Order: sequence, then structure tokens, then C-alpha cells
Amino acid sequence: VTSPDDRALSRFLADVERRSSDLEILTGDDCVRRYSDPFRLRSLGDGTVAAVRPSGGTAIQDIVRSANEHGVPLWPISRGENLGYGGSASFGDAAVILDLSRMNRILAVNVEDAFCLVEPGVSFVDMHDHLQRHDLPLWLSVPGYGLGSMVGNALERGVGNSPYGDHASQICGLEVVLGDGELVRTGMGALSGSGMWQRQRAALGPRYDELFVQSGYGVVTKMGLWLMPQPEASAAIEIELSDRDGLGGLVETLTSLKRQAYIQDSPVIASFLTMAALRSVRSDWSDERRALNLEESRRLRDALGLGWWNARTRLYGPVDMVELCLGHVEKALRPFADSGVRVSRWRRGEPIENAHRGIPSGGGLANAQWCGEGGAHVDLAVALPLSGAEAMRHALRVMDLLESVGVDYHSAFYLRERHMLNIVQLLFDRNDTAMCEAVEAAYKMLIIDASMRGYGVTRAPAHFRADAMAVFDFADHALSRMGARIKAALDPGAILSPGKDGFPAEIRPIGSLPTAR
Amino acid sequence: VTSPDDRALSRFLADVERRSSDLEILTGDDCVRRYSDPFRLRSLGDGTVAAVRPSGGTAIQDIVRSANEHGVPLWPISRGENLGYGGSASFGDAAVILDLSRMNRILAVNVEDAFCLVEPGVSFVDMHDHLQRHDLPLWLSVPGYGLGSMVGNALERGVGNSPYGDHASQICGLEVVLGDGELVRTGMGALSGSGMWQRQRAALGPRYDELFVQSGYGVVTKMGLWLMPQPEASAAIEIELSDRDGLGGLVETLTSLKRQAYIQDSPVIASFLTMAALRSVRSDWSDERRALNLEESRRLRDALGLGWWNARTRLYGPVDMVELCLGHVEKALRPFADSGVRVSRWRRGEPIENAHRGIPSGGGLANAQWCGEGGAHVDLAVALPLSGAEAMRHALRVMDLLESVGVDYHSAFYLRERHMLNIVQLLFDRNDTAMCEAVEAAYKMLIIDASMRGYGVTRAPAHFRADAMAVFDFADHALSRMGARIKAALDPGAILSPGKDGFPAEIRPIGSLPTAR
Repeated sequence: VTSPDDRALSRFLADVERRSSDLEILTGDDCVRRYSDPFRLRSLGDGTVAAVRPSGGTAIQDIVRSANEHGVPLWPISRGENLGYGGSASFGDAAVILDLSRMNRILAVNVEDAFCLVEPGVSFVDMHDHLQRHDLPLWLSVPGYGLGSMVGNALERGVGNSPYGDHASQICGLEVVLGDGELVRTGMGALSGSGMWQRQRAALGPRYDELFVQSGYGVVTKMGLWLMPQPEASAAIEIELSDRDGLGGLVETLTSLKRQAYIQDSPVIASFLTMAALRSVRSDWSDERRALNLEESRRLRDALGLGWWNARTRLYGPVDMVELCLGHVEKALRPFADSGVRVSRWRRGEPIENAHRGIPSGGGLANAQWCGEGGAHVDLAVALPLSGAEAMRHALRVMDLLESVGVDYHSAFYLRERHMLNIVQLLFDRNDTAMCEAVEAAYKMLIIDASMRGYGVTRAPAHFRADAMAVFDFADHALSRMGARIKAALDPGAILSPGKDGFPAEIRPIGSLPTAR
Repeated sequence: VTSPDDRALSRFLADVERRSSDLEILTGDDCVRRYSDPFRLRSLGDGTVAAVRPSGGTAIQDIVRSANEHGVPLWPISRGENLGYGGSASFGDAAVILDLSRMNRILAVNVEDAFCLVEPGVSFVDMHDHLQRHDLPLWLSVPGYGLGSMVGNALERGVGNSPYGDHASQICGLEVVLGDGELVRTGMGALSGSGMWQRQRAALGPRYDELFVQSGYGVVTKMGLWLMPQPEASAAIEIELSDRDGLGGLVETLTSLKRQAYIQDSPVIASFLTMAALRSVRSDWSDERRALNLEESRRLRDALGLGWWNARTRLYGPVDMVELCLGHVEKALRPFADSGVRVSRWRRGEPIENAHRGIPSGGGLANAQWCGEGGAHVDLAVALPLSGAEAMRHALRVMDLLESVGVDYHSAFYLRERHMLNIVQLLFDRNDTAMCEAVEAAYKMLIIDASMRGYGVTRAPAHFRADAMAVFDFADHALSRMGARIKAALDPGAILSPGKDGFPAEIRPIGSLPTAR
């Protein structure tokens, strides 16, 4: 698919407008502004030429079919809030944004089996409000920014630190419009009227849910997600570790606690700037065009009462189990807790107070202002083995690389079952061209450097996707080649999310519109 | 693909023999006997015309490419022990068995992160022996029959009742030869030399592992599987419930314990015949050609000391946590335990004694002799909601249907996170044609009856696959149609496992050999 010419676009827009009774269409500069990525690094023309905003129903199928007929690529977004990873902006070739945010129905919430079925427009805040309004004992795993879509977040491998924090893993059942307009329900949803759609992951045959995570194979129009049943009790634990080089020991200790099942969530260990960027701006500490130095960093930590590393974890369960676990966790963490182990207990019936307990907020974006008015960030997630030594090695390596290009080290480690996710945020000033260039170079260096240790990036903005995919090179990029074959089978016109998959150019399937219909 | 003619087959066999230095080829009656399903219901010609047994390496790719060239369908099996679900036999059209059992290397076992990487020929017994020999503190989740392949079992959705009992969910990273011979590694295996292949499930882009579960899209040649780290302690709990109608209450109680995290595994509730068939034969209790009646059943239970329902569950963790959980579980189960709650504790360092702790055995087959020398069984797994009332309703319904065709009720419920798997075994005498016909009819009735409540079959022998898939009818069988499109993309010659997918005939992709290579 090449960029649609004005005539094809006009015909497409006229066509979808005629077919749908309740469709908003946006064009022109307002549209481009609305859907551009506020954090985009480069002045790449982001390709947006128009946007269509259906309210639901069969409109999506009509739009996708029409896009195939007229050769107009679509860039589906849920709510377009995937900030740090590209926002709502399309990539590369001109495309029409398929904005699903008006499809915002909560179709089911089941308390007993703890699941929901939602449309792409439902945000974490929407679901939180719904649960509060109906007094439902279910807890959300929330990402840093609560105004994003639950569907979009899971599809883009968003994370939280609750036991349900690997959001893509909580998907149970999808409704999808494939690239040629065919409507499919996965899993038990394929048995018409089945009550098992959100209860049972695999039907007969392969499970297809994860095929639509981070892909351009289809447009997800409904998603089942598992939620966390409200526990009887919980305990939040926070510590500050002042010694930068103590990271390894802390990782080993938390891993051991997690392996003994004393910890149920994904403990997070965040570098001080991650916290500092929520409460201050860079110019409070330095005006130099380089990464903060040791002295500035120390002054900052002292002023804000932060450790070099700041760890939090939360225990969940019946009261007696939480107390038992807490005893072990407190004791094990004490040697690392330079200002003591802070514990905050909660029991069912008490008011729920903070974000760790699943209250989504819009506050996660505050850190974007770190570099001032033009502040922005691009994020990079790399998975490492659950090893203290490797965490330390990787942290030092990333610090060095960032320092070499004058970028501060904002980093958090999420400890999972058999790996550890390291999310690094590169905060920069969009108005500073040299800095943008430095960040772009640093991002690519980080991808390549990680790959040399056998680590791959799990999330990346669309314009870094090709770089991030390039490292998956086994058998001459066989994985991308397989992806391209599935892409061609499910989106034969190559209409959806052009370029998003990041397949190397030479194996990207060339779009050919289906001839027979 | 139609059946290969003798010339095509000869050419294929000559071709693969020439290409491979270490390949066993079997033909003729011995071959047919060796690979026929000992439990097959009908005298279906099972299509086996030959078998090839590579020892590994690139032989699989050569064989698959050659099969494409000569139009010879392949029926890949790991060890061919999927008994009750078709064994090693192919289905429908003539096919060459691709027997992977000689590829039996244990490529990696990692204790710290608790995973292994194995070839398809590795059985549960092989892995158990390996762990014992090297004194490695890892536990297996084992199915009823331990001589089967770990790979084959996971690919066919085999189950155990340990916390790792949903074996397909423990897959982390595959090496696959696609239907046209292309070699692919999924997940982090696509980053050459990455140590994360078995540690991190999703790389960048979709996760493809589950695409190869129960499908004919590729031949899995290596599989990463997560194993259970040896806990500090465990406690096995068994109870007998004499009241048939008490099932609902028991399900609710176990579900509640599981939801409070006092139980970590999948509790199993088995009907008395499930146990009786391991310790006696049908003729011990009745010579009538009908389902056992109430009086015979009572005599059997009294003689063998069985409840109508027999439940077992196992707790795992540090000593203090197991003791805490055990207190709650014992107390909650006491009202159902007509001969008391039997508890067997284990602590690290003590000898490991029984199958619940992950000792695979060949004993699971003993129940096949229930109906005498010609004894066999076909199995049916249906997922239900975690509801006591629905468990009871379903149990009564299945009993009625089976009684109406004169088949005994062998049934077990596995309680999972948000659903419950009911596995029913239909035990019969292969030499009794009328009984075979009754079992076949009953099997199809059970599929259709379950579907009317919105339940689908999760495992079925190949010759019932089409019936089992037919109920997944949403949007005119869109799920099967999507499957057929992926099949055509990954196995363009329709060479692998013809008919196994169970797609309705009208949407099954017609095989066409790739013209350009």
C-alpha cells in the first residue's frame, strides 16, 4: 500500500460516511494535531491524513472493507494514549486514524469469576469509576497513566505491578475484525452465546488471543480481561536503598521472597529520578546540558528524601496469610532499608487510598515535564534474567550509554516470575534538536547493546520498531518472515497499521488488494 | 492433498533416505500395526502407509520439504502415546507417520529459573529420571500416563493437577518446522543465542507459542517448558464424599479455598469408577451389558472403600505457609469427609513417595482393562464454569446420557482458576461392535449436549475433531475460517496432519503444492 491519493481518500471517506449512520470524520490540520504524538522525537511527517470515529456496531467491518476497496491504510487506535510508545500517531506512509475511543461500553463485569468484557474506548479510570459506583469487589492493575485504554494497554504489553500486572497475560477472549473485514471471536466466544468466553482461555485448537498483541493482523473490538478479586487484606511495603551498588543484593532478596511465594505481585525497584521527575523539574537541580552529576544527584536525593533505588511491593490475601508473609518480607528487606521498612496495611472494609491498590490516575504524565515545557519521553522495555549481578551490570551499562549522550537515567525494574523487565524512560526537550538527536541515537544504541547480551526490547514506539525487530535474526529473521506470512493471510490488502510490525523491509509483504470478494 | 500413490510414496521414501544419514523407515503391516491406535473405536483404515523416524538435526526440514515435493502428507507424532485421544494414528487420508521419538535429548534443565528445553521424544519418565539422577530440586506436573512425551502432551493440552497442571500454559519458547520446511524459533529464541528463550514468554510482537498447540501448522522440534521449583513443604489432602449429590457443595468449598489462595494446585474430584478401574475390572462387579446399577455401584464402593466422589488437593510452599493453609483447608473440608480428612505431609529432604508429588508412571493405562482384554477408552474434556450447581447438573446429565447407551460413568473434575475441566472417559470393549457403536454415538451426543449449554470440548480424538469444531459456529464458523487461512499461510501444501484441525469441510483449505521454491 502506498499513500492514498486525494481521490482515493475522498472516495473512501464518502463511502464510509454513506455506509454508517453515526460516524465522525476528521480531516485537515486539526486532525493532524489531534492525533500527532506529543512526544515524537523527530519531525517525521506522521502520515495522518484523516480520522474516522465510529460508535461501534458493524461500522468497523464497513470501514475496513472500504479501506481495502480504496487502498487506504488504516491506523487503529483505542484511545491513543500509548504515550512514550508513539501515542496515537501513525507511522510512515499516510494513513487514516481509525479511532475507537467512542466505542466505550463496559459490556460485562463479573464479580464471582473476576473478569470484564470491554470495548477499546474504556479507560482504566472508566472501569475504576464503574467498580466504585457499583461497589464491586474487584481491583484493577493500573499502568502509570490511567486515562489510557484497557484494551490498547493490554494489546501493547502495558504493565502494572499487581499480581495481574502483565496485562497481555490477562486477556481472555477477543472479538476482532481481520484486515479484510471478517469478524472473528476467539476462544469460547466462537461458540455462539457461550458463557465461557471470559472464563476459559483455550477452546479446541490453538489459542489465538496473543496473535493480536502488538500486531497489525486485526482490529480488536471487544476484549475479555481478568481482574483481581479484592483480597481480604493487603500490605504495601516501601524501602529506600541509598547505595547504588546494592541493587544486585536487593534483586536477589526480592526474587527469593517471590520464589517462596511470600510476595504475590511484581516488586518494582525504581531509580531516584523516576520519583524525582514526578515531584520536581530538572532545572531545580541543574542547568547543565549533560546528565546530572554525582553531586547534583546527591543533593536531589537528600532534598526529596529518596534512596538511590526505591523499592515497593505489595502482599495480598487473607489476613493471616498477609501477616505471615509480611513477617518474612520485613525481616529480609531490613538490611536494605536505609530509612526503615515502611508498611501500610489495608483490610477489607477500610477505604482504599492509593494507586498501588489499583486507583488509576492521570499523574503518570507529570514526569514528562522533567526537561521543561517541551518535555517528552520515549520508553524502552528490556527483559533481563532474574539475576542481581545482571541487573547491576545492565544498570551501569545503560547509565554509561545515557551519560555519554547527556541523558539522565530514569529506570525501573519489575520483577516477574522468570525474568525482570527494565523500563528506561528517556526524558528530553522536544524543542532541543540536538537533544532529540542524542536521544534517538541513544535509543538505538540501547537496542543494539541489549541484543549483544541476548536481550530484546518488548515495547518500542513504531518508528523504532524496525530497529527493535532487526535483532530477532535467528534463521535469517524467520520469526519476522512467519509474521509476514500470517499478516498476508489475515490482512491481505496490507491495510492495517502499515509499518507497525517492524518486519525488515525485504520481508514485509507487499500489499495487494484482494481481487475477488 | 489426496492419498499419495505408490509411486509418489516410493519416491518420497527414496528421497528422504538419500538426504538423511540416520533415518529409520518403516513400511508394511508391521508399520501399520505399530502406529495404529490401540483404542480406536471404529475399523477406520487409519491411513498409515509408512513411518519415518529421524534422529534430529536438519532431517525434519528435509523430510517436510520432500513431502511437499512429492505430495505426501505427514502425520507428526512425538511419542504417539496420546492414548484416549487417538494415540499415534493418523486420520483420514493416507499419511506417513513422522515419528519424532528418537529425538529425545534433554537440551537444558535450569534449576534457578525452573525450566527445561526438550525434544519431542523426551517422556515424563525420562525427565523424572534425569532430575533424580542429578538430584535437581524441580518437580514435574505429570499426566495419568508417564510414558508419553512432554512436548506432545503440552501440544495436545494434556493436564495434571499440580499448580503447573495446565501444561500448554507452561510452554515458553518453541522451535518449529513450518509446513513448507522453514525453521522458526518463537519468542526470545528468535534472538540468536539469547539466554532468555525459556525465561521470557513474549518478545516484541505477538506471542506465537500457542499457535502450535493442537494445530497442524508446524512440527515442533524443541520446546521450552516451565517446571515447578521444589517447595520447602507440601501437604496432600484426600477425602471421600459418599453422597453423590454433595458434589455441588464440595465444588463450591474447594473453589472458595482456591480463591483465597489457601489451595495452590487444581483440586480433582473423581467419580468412584475412575479409581475402581485402576484396581479392579468390570466383571468383578457385573456381567450385565448395561451401565452398573445402583446396587452394584454401592457394593463396589463398599468393597474398595471409595466415596461416590473422591477429592484430592495438594498444598505447596514454605513450611509455615503450608501449615497455615492446611488449617483452613482441613476445617473447610471436614463436613464432606465421610472417612475423615487424610493428610500426608512432606518436607524438603524427606523421600518423595507418590505420584501427586510428580512421579510419572505407566499405571494410568491400567484402567483401560475395565471392560476386559479388548478394553479401551476414548476421552472427552469439557470446560464448565466454577459452579457447584452446574457441576452437579452436568454430572447428572452425562450419567443419564451414558446410561441410556449402557456405558459406565468414569469422570473427574479439575478445578482451575476461572473454570473447571470435566474429563469423562468412555471405557469399552473393542471386540464388542455394538458397544463401539454405542460409545461413538454417546461421544457425539455429549459434544452436542454440552454445546447447548455453551460448553465446548477442549480435547478430542482426531476422528471426533470435526464434530467438536462444528459447535464453534460464531459468524458462520469464522474461527475455523481464520484457522484455515493461517494453515494455508504456514503449510501451503497442506502436508501436515490432514484433517486434524477439524475445520468444517467446506472451509478447509484445499492443498496446493507451492509451485516456486
